[in-house]
Amino acid sequence: MTRKQAGLRPVEPVAGNGILSRRLFLERALVAGTAVSMGTGIREASAEPLAVQPWMRTPGSGFAGYGQPSSFEGKVARFIPPSPNPATQGVGPARTPLHLLDGIITPSGLHFERSHSGIPDIDPDQHQLVIHGLVQRPLVFTVDALHRYPMESRIAFIECAGNSQALNAPKPLPLGMAAIHGLVSCAEWTGVRLSTLLDEAGVDRSARWVIAEGGDSASMSRSIPLAKALDDTLVCLYQNGERVRPSNGYPIRLLVPGYEGNLNVKWLRRLELTAAPAMSKDETSRYTILLNDEKAWQFVFPMEVKSLVTRPAPGLKLQGAGFYEISGLAWSGHGSIRKVEVSADGGKSWAPAVLQNPVLSKAPVRFRAPWQWDGGPAVLQSRATDDKGNVQPTRAAFAAERGLRGIFHYNAIASWGINENGEAANVYA
Amino acid sequence: MTRKQAGLRPVEPVAGNGILSRRLFLERALVAGTAVSMGTGIREASAEPLAVQPWMRTPGSGFAGYGQPSSFEGKVARFIPPSPNPATQGVGPARTPLHLLDGIITPSGLHFERSHSGIPDIDPDQHQLVIHGLVQRPLVFTVDALHRYPMESRIAFIECAGNSQALNAPKPLPLGMAAIHGLVSCAEWTGVRLSTLLDEAGVDRSARWVIAEGGDSASMSRSIPLAKALDDTLVCLYQNGERVRPSNGYPIRLLVPGYEGNLNVKWLRRLELTAAPAMSKDETSRYTILLNDEKAWQFVFPMEVKSLVTRPAPGLKLQGAGFYEISGLAWSGHGSIRKVEVSADGGKSWAPAVLQNPVLSKAPVRFRAPWQWDGGPAVLQSRATDDKGNVQPTRAAFAAERGLRGIFHYNAIASWGINENGEAANVYA
Repeated sequence: MTRKQAGLRPVEPVAGNGILSRRLFLERALVAGTAVSMGTGIREASAEPLAVQPWMRTPGSGFAGYGQPSSFEGKVARFIPPSPNPATQGVGPARTPLHLLDGIITPSGLHFERSHSGIPDIDPDQHQLVIHGLVQRPLVFTVDALHRYPMESRIAFIECAGNSQALNAPKPLPLGMAAIHGLVSCAEWTGVRLSTLLDEAGVDRSARWVIAEGGDSASMSRSIPLAKALDDTLVCLYQNGERVRPSNGYPIRLLVPGYEGNLNVKWLRRLELTAAPAMSKDETSRYTILLNDEKAWQFVFPMEVKSLVTRPAPGLKLQGAGFYEISGLAWSGHGSIRKVEVSADGGKSWAPAVLQNPVLSKAPVRFRAPWQWDGGPAVLQSRATDDKGNVQPTRAAFAAERGLRGIFHYNAIASWGINENGEAANVYA
Repeated sequence: MTRKQAGLRPVEPVAGNGILSRRLFLERALVAGTAVSMGTGIREASAEPLAVQPWMRTPGSGFAGYGQPSSFEGKVARFIPPSPNPATQGVGPARTPLHLLDGIITPSGLHFERSHSGIPDIDPDQHQLVIHGLVQRPLVFTVDALHRYPMESRIAFIECAGNSQALNAPKPLPLGMAAIHGLVSCAEWTGVRLSTLLDEAGVDRSARWVIAEGGDSASMSRSIPLAKALDDTLVCLYQNGERVRPSNGYPIRLLVPGYEGNLNVKWLRRLELTAAPAMSKDETSRYTILLNDEKAWQFVFPMEVKSLVTRPAPGLKLQGAGFYEISGLAWSGHGSIRKVEVSADGGKSWAPAVLQNPVLSKAPVRFRAPWQWDGGPAVLQSRATDDKGNVQPTRAAFAAERGLRGIFHYNAIASWGINENGEAANVYA
């Protein structure tokens, strides 16, 4: 039966180089027919009975108290660049393999981390959180005491300010998804509003900043504006349902929704209220935005609107021309995502992608768009717009505003070039 | 400083035995003051400098490709009843410790499982999915081929039809959260709509059912109405971002949103379209609802509206009178949750709880309510209402309709009795 016989409309691209209408996802028997006609690796079943595989011939294994991924998924791991100094293991990043994941939740075992002196092994019964400085009543909280307070859950992204900095290089580096973009992840975080705890302590009128200090051996510290601390900042105890993972701050971490990752202080032990910022190492020599005129922006907190195509991507070779889904993630530290557009011709033409529910403020959204690959060269891009009207800039526009000397807050449109073998690579377009 | 001096309104209960208004969660400096005045284990900080803990004196550990929970959280594990027969390990349930979790996502390592012949160790490159029977074109899909199709992500609960069956006992059994209620979990699932694959095969006009068969050594099989298969059923490849876990069906499982857990067939290998249901073991001798008049209901698919208080709960002893948060989960196989009410006096009086975002169809919602425990006996309950108007029944009303001989689809209001020592126990009220 041909498509015409089946009463199907022909599938017309809505943007250059094979981007199809997202309406395909809503119209049954249309994208499906397309896929068959173009070949997706399916084949017609033979009259032979189904093979009985070895794992069907004997009972499977018993139960585990805490389960693990399949041994066949060993390649799905964080990307850990080799340490330049064997004495400083645990200093640097471990990056999320976004191209091997789908949905918006990052499994906690793969959530990115950026640590400044390794991962401390903290006994929660010995750990305390102190709130002091410009308060009426300095207080000490145990982890058990924090469990008495009203909690709040929210799905939120955390992105390291240094994510995607490889795209500042003058020529495209031959790097993959995790190496370039793997410093962003998402979890459902649950904790106590910091405002609740600050009210317990009684904030002095002269306070303007909260200095958050981690309990690692680097005592990593950042200054958070009091207004943000009183708004939506959470003192988190849970990550994706269970207690926060050691590499993400066990037993307590801050979630400062939408703000650069470094402020979401892990292993939180101290909150000092002050009139001025601490000017700590990580807000002076690091995490400032160096401009072309030798000046720098300091205290640029929200991560800008951004999106990535996570599939196709380097390491995921296309198996011949035909139908593929273009899929990725979009987020904004300023609010929620309103629109994501995709392009297969390097930004010459664009078509809107489907946004998956839920669409939440300061949380990533999974987007999807149907694509008919003709087997020729293509350049895949995505462009996100948030509900404040911020639009992800081109690399050229980004460079014109900020220059390319800084390494933080890179949010320009990223490109994967697809060659005739179906291989994807980092390109500038 | 007293509450009055601080200009705080007195906190009046809105339901019996100390349930406070959920508005407390929205009004800063109110619940906080309450907590302090009643004591939550916090104390005023001394003038001594903060103790420097051992883990701050040396660098922490290096990075892991795939991270794990803290070694201090070893008690957070699935509850696995001892197998009555050593020859049948992996037959039965492993239950989620809901009282030790928060938020709505169940970490995949703790997602409940109910297996009929253990967990097969399936090589995804050898695994295939066949669609045959009343179709125009029988088809075989590899896992790679499925990755070519448009996908969809949704956050959804799965509940075993046998969950909470312990509450059918004539007298309350001395069991805890996981043992009674731990056969419900939630994940973000991602996969291909089954309708897309069925359209590929071309459904014959005479087809009414889809028989789904698992690739375990039990060949666990269930019949799914074709209308549901064509509606929102997903052929899932991803769970909480990563590939589906072995104990939850790696490499392919069905998600039949809102329907009893058993239909969400794991290790999916075969879908046969038929005119009539298969009448498999698990839809005749099991998973039917035995009534008092010796008749049984068969093919009762959606899990009914339900809720549970997960904290306080057995095993989580209250540490003295004062402020606590009552928190739990609510869900409905018929749609989304519209309202959850809580009671501290065994159902004599009720007050609405806060529902956390997102509120999604066929997904659990986390609810929270503030509670001032006076240190005396209390009976905590929750009662959910869904957007179709279904209300969770009392145990008496449930028994009057269905009797208590069956062991499936128990959704009546559950009760935790709190004694004067702050211990919680399963009670009937």
